[in-house]
Amino acid sequence: MNEKLEGIFTPTMVPLDQSGEINEAELRRYIDWLIERGVHGLYPNGSTGEFTRFTAEERRRIIEIFCDQTKGRVPILAGAAEANVKETLSACEKYAQFGARAVAIVSPFYYRLSPESVFAYFREIALNSPIDVTLYNIPMFASPIDVPTIKRLSAFPRIIGIKDSSGDLAFMMRMMSAVKPTRPDFVFLTGWEAVLVPMLMVGCNGGTNATSGVVPELTRQVYDLTRVGQWDQAMKLQFRLLELFDAMLLSADFPEGFRAAINLRGFNLGRSRQPLSEIQRIDQTALQHVLQCIMSDFGVVEPPPGGCAPRSGNMSRDKIAQIAQEVVEKLRKQGAF
Amino acid sequence: MNEKLEGIFTPTMVPLDQSGEINEAELRRYIDWLIERGVHGLYPNGSTGEFTRFTAEERRRIIEIFCDQTKGRVPILAGAAEANVKETLSACEKYAQFGARAVAIVSPFYYRLSPESVFAYFREIALNSPIDVTLYNIPMFASPIDVPTIKRLSAFPRIIGIKDSSGDLAFMMRMMSAVKPTRPDFVFLTGWEAVLVPMLMVGCNGGTNATSGVVPELTRQVYDLTRVGQWDQAMKLQFRLLELFDAMLLSADFPEGFRAAINLRGFNLGRSRQPLSEIQRIDQTALQHVLQCIMSDFGVVEPPPGGCAPRSGNMSRDKIAQIAQEVVEKLRKQGAF
Amino acid sequence: MNEKLEGIFTPTMVPLDQSGEINEAELRRYIDWLIERGVHGLYPNGSTGEFTRFTAEERRRIIEIFCDQTKGRVPILAGAAEANVKETLSACEKYAQFGARAVAIVSPFYYRLSPESVFAYFREIALNSPIDVTLYNIPMFASPIDVPTIKRLSAFPRIIGIKDSSGDLAFMMRMMSAVKPTRPDFVFLTGWEAVLVPMLMVGCNGGTNATSGVVPELTRQVYDLTRVGQWDQAMKLQFRLLELFDAMLLSADFPEGFRAAINLRGFNLGRSRQPLSEIQRIDQTALQHVLQCIMSDFGVVEPPPGGCAPRSGNMSRDKIAQIAQEVVEKLRKQGAF
Amino acid sequence: MNEKLEGIFTPTMVPLDQSGEINEAELRRYIDWLIERGVHGLYPNGSTGEFTRFTAEERRRIIEIFCDQTKGRVPILAGAAEANVKETLSACEKYAQFGARAVAIVSPFYYRLSPESVFAYFREIALNSPIDVTLYNIPMFASPIDVPTIKRLSAFPRIIGIKDSSGDLAFMMRMMSAVKPTRPDFVFLTGWEAVLVPMLMVGCNGGTNATSGVVPELTRQVYDLTRVGQWDQAMKLQFRLLELFDAMLLSADFPEGFRAAINLRGFNLGRSRQPLSEIQRIDQTALQHVLQCIMSDFGVVEPPPGGCAPRSGNMSRDKIAQIAQEVVEKLRKQGAF
Repeated sequence: MNEKLEGIFTPTMVPLDQSGEINEAELRRYIDWLIERGVHGLYPNGSTGEFTRFTAEERRRIIEIFCDQTKGRVPILAGAAEANVKETLSACEKYAQFGARAVAIVSPFYYRLSPESVFAYFREIALNSPIDVTLYNIPMFASPIDVPTIKRLSAFPRIIGIKDSSGDLAFMMRMMSAVKPTRPDFVFLTGWEAVLVPMLMVGCNGGTNATSGVVPELTRQVYDLTRVGQWDQAMKLQFRLLELFDAMLLSADFPEGFRAAINLRGFNLGRSRQPLSEIQRIDQTALQHVLQCIMSDFGVVEPPPGGCAPRSGNMSRDKIAQIAQEVVEKLRKQGAF
Repeated sequence: MNEKLEGIFTPTMVPLDQSGEINEAELRRYIDWLIERGVHGLYPNGSTGEFTRFTAEERRRIIEIFCDQTKGRVPILAGAAEANVKETLSACEKYAQFGARAVAIVSPFYYRLSPESVFAYFREIALNSPIDVTLYNIPMFASPIDVPTIKRLSAFPRIIGIKDSSGDLAFMMRMMSAVKPTRPDFVFLTGWEAVLVPMLMVGCNGGTNATSGVVPELTRQVYDLTRVGQWDQAMKLQFRLLELFDAMLLSADFPEGFRAAINLRGFNLGRSRQPLSEIQRIDQTALQHVLQCIMSDFGVVEPPPGGCAPRSGNMSRDKIAQIAQEVVEKLRKQGAF
Repeated sequence: MNEKLEGIFTPTMVPLDQSGEINEAELRRYIDWLIERGVHGLYPNGSTGEFTRFTAEERRRIIEIFCDQTKGRVPILAGAAEANVKETLSACEKYAQFGARAVAIVSPFYYRLSPESVFAYFREIALNSPIDVTLYNIPMFASPIDVPTIKRLSAFPRIIGIKDSSGDLAFMMRMMSAVKPTRPDFVFLTGWEAVLVPMLMVGCNGGTNATSGVVPELTRQVYDLTRVGQWDQAMKLQFRLLELFDAMLLSADFPEGFRAAINLRGFNLGRSRQPLSEIQRIDQTALQHVLQCIMSDFGVVEPPPGGCAPRSGNMSRDKIAQIAQEVVEKLRKQGAF
Repeated sequence: MNEKLEGIFTPTMVPLDQSGEINEAELRRYIDWLIERGVHGLYPNGSTGEFTRFTAEERRRIIEIFCDQTKGRVPILAGAAEANVKETLSACEKYAQFGARAVAIVSPFYYRLSPESVFAYFREIALNSPIDVTLYNIPMFASPIDVPTIKRLSAFPRIIGIKDSSGDLAFMMRMMSAVKPTRPDFVFLTGWEAVLVPMLMVGCNGGTNATSGVVPELTRQVYDLTRVGQWDQAMKLQFRLLELFDAMLLSADFPEGFRAAINLRGFNLGRSRQPLSEIQRIDQTALQHVLQCIMSDFGVVEPPPGGCAPRSGNMSRDKIAQIAQEVVEKLRKQGAF
């Protein structure tokens, strides 16, 4: 059970039903689908999983479902950040009982804490958690965990690794240089699939990449190619994954682009608990069609009925071009010209 | 009951007992003390109140205690941000029942949302809240609410004002220029007491200033002097409040400096739920002594037994000087020289 | 000659002729015009004056023209930043000979230097300059000068003040608190006219405000009203100046909006040395018409022939509305409807 | 002569004599030394070369010396940014006459320009330059050049490539995806040797890396190992280069750490034109000793006489430890213990 964390851990979104409640059946179906497509592990209650938009009770229920449905087929890395140390530790206990392999705990957020406070927070958790802990560094959303702090925290055996979503390769290397001499077993996971292949190349043990919730076949392939040293092949796929990643990441508020893309794989994630405006809903539809085109190039979905417009890489332009393409195609079919 | 929000609303900290639970007796004593010293209203569950470090249940209990203890003597502006729109609305309902005057809702945090999403979020709340809503803009911690979004949101009668903690005077004026022509009743509160007098001068209706939880007599005096146009007197106090504010704000992770200062007024706030490291605890003690010196200049507390070292404005240096002063004084008293 | 710097110092733009060279005749005409409209001093070679886009020789020639044309009517605060300390000092010498009252030296830019380097740079200048020096803090463009560094630099008699363009009122107050006790004569000028009145209120001696190059009558009036304590009148004008300032500042790359507005006053500043794209040129025209509308409300220019569309405060929208207004008006006049 | 830019181009520092003037003899010696150690090209007047601290005349003289001394042995990529388009073009002409292979032009700095202005600036240059132009993107110092702008500029044949110092691998890949389909010959150089190997791996043609001015043998070796696909060896060296790079980059204001390190190779670069404070000079000495230790591990210099203290990766701590080590060793040698 205590095998080392390694490979692609999918940060999973949670399907919601019409009333905005967790759609358990769809979630279980999604879990099975991911495992069947070869992801190495699952990472619920992360940023992609919109953990802040669920209640504490719901977050527990989510982990319970994941552990129950997975039944040990793949390890669960459970996001366990709660309102304070006591609540976080209480979640850790629960998740250990459920059978999670480890927890991932994001640095305190809302307040931007100093390195000393970040250290004090994780120290308390490290001393009391009944389950292995992975630090989670995502400086764009939470208090940054700097290299000296990671070094200090690596002295606690309960802390087994870090998941970093900064996307900064030099930072990843600095962490490795600082920690590996005294903790050769420390696990480094990257949350930034834009540069997954280079990150694996410099020594990452794997990734927690939202794209693997959309095209698990492909992130797995990228991972496998890299592991056997087929860099050229891996990089070719990496460039294509980057296009998909950017399309999902940059053209809607996170994680709406990922929701749209997962739906294209045959799931019904429902509406986000963060409401969308009228404009956003229209934009979301246009985005989904462009995503469908990108994904159809991978052969994982069919292209939209009206066909795909050429893509320029400029998403605002591509959304409009795609809509125009479909309108024109529709008119053509109706014999308009 | 529906009087306009006006004056100083104290963002209140919550005393904790030895086991880290809400110390209700001390909280009630603190509420009375604040009201007796003339604050115009109370603002629990704000950033100063560490709302993110309490559970949803605790946040409700806190508002319940405030409403119960206040018994209508001053209006309650209740922080009501929860995990999502549904939970936030459910808090709004409760707080309306408890008798709060209005709620203050911080913009969605963790994720940095676009203006369109911020609009969609508050629109949903504005349409469904049973209680008046004040927007809460604090761009250093949460998604910023920009001027066009505030303008759009001011179209909803339920949204009665904004509390802004950016400290940017020009931004405050831009909001006023945009909103007042169509909503002359819209309330503008500043959360940045560093510039309280100028903010009042440009047209703010009041402030939600953490310093008023420490020296309510003085923030009230600043407010009153400004209201009657005694700018010179007001500005003199403003400069002194700035020294105190900076000392509390800049020399420890927020809101630890405020906790230390409130304790000096005879309260026992207990330890924060965010753990402190050894170094931080020592530093906190040094800070408290410097704060005591600053506050003794106002006549609200006694100076420390060893007397006060001269202050340079450089807090790191002042903390050391103050400790040195007290050690020397101690040795002198013991006849060491 | 060594009177204290006080009042509004206009940061002046430099007219260029068709071949992009300094248009000396127009510059001299502009200088006279400004002095006649009551500005207290002139500040050439600042950020508004595009000092980085001139050669070292041209910068000297500019100061020479200013001193020659002004003939002591108002003091000249000459921007003197050059490639390095030696070159800067050489400019200081020249400007002293020309008869400038003082120089303003921006913190080193391009490289973002540490406070220690910023100190070392100005220390060297302070020890060797034959003319009084004003520090120039503009953190959005150059290495920031922090409060402890300003405090240290205030120990040099040659450094007589600071011009701050951060627009941060609390920062201005912090500087004053730090410096005034030991240098009561130190001069504080604000470069952020968005909050000119509040800045004067907290104790600034004046401002270096680009808007005074556009509507010198009005910035002077704002200054005078504030000096005699007519805050209400002053603030009313302040809100209107803010609209004009924002329109010039935010809707084109700095300082293009100011160039467009000065041209409306009857000058021909020519084209910037920073080329504009096609799109930018069209946009510049639309901006100029909106500016004309704002300025005509002040009575300093005529409204555009086609009249003014109502303004919304949203400049992108206002530009389009104004163009539409003028087109419609033209068609109407031609009898199109 | 018009061969494609490929390999390591050393951004060179300029030795100064006691009076702060260009030390031509030492510069020529340095140029020869670099070429002998295998760098593929030289890049004078870049950020490392402190181009902003020289006068326009000096910048020309520098390029003249480089071209004269190099005599075609390696290509010169000459930094050519001047005060405005006209001056920059005039430098381009000169550098073409001197025999430079191409120029590198940094995006306009001081003012932060919009993408449209950045485009207009480079467009003008592209249409008029008599020599090939490389864009230079360094967002921490100058206006950023974004992907759509690079795409637009790649339509001009005169623009042959980009040197990017953002260090952002995903950004590099995005540029490649955007530009390569229409300009397969476009050159991508990275200025961030912290991740040189990964950058080469994703497709960079080479690098302009300041570290190659310090240890040209090693950056060349890293490059060669990468080119033949010996990733493991290359990465091992990459991690060690990162330690050296960080030590030079992060523990003094740029480029003082590089100056200290080059001096260790037997050159006398003299003092920077940017003055150092007392504290900085002491710190610089400590830094130099730590650098000597790091560099002695590479076998390119001798360790300091007192030996090397173990390094922790925390430079502030390492500097102190190194000084302590040397003091202790000195005392030991003097028989103190």
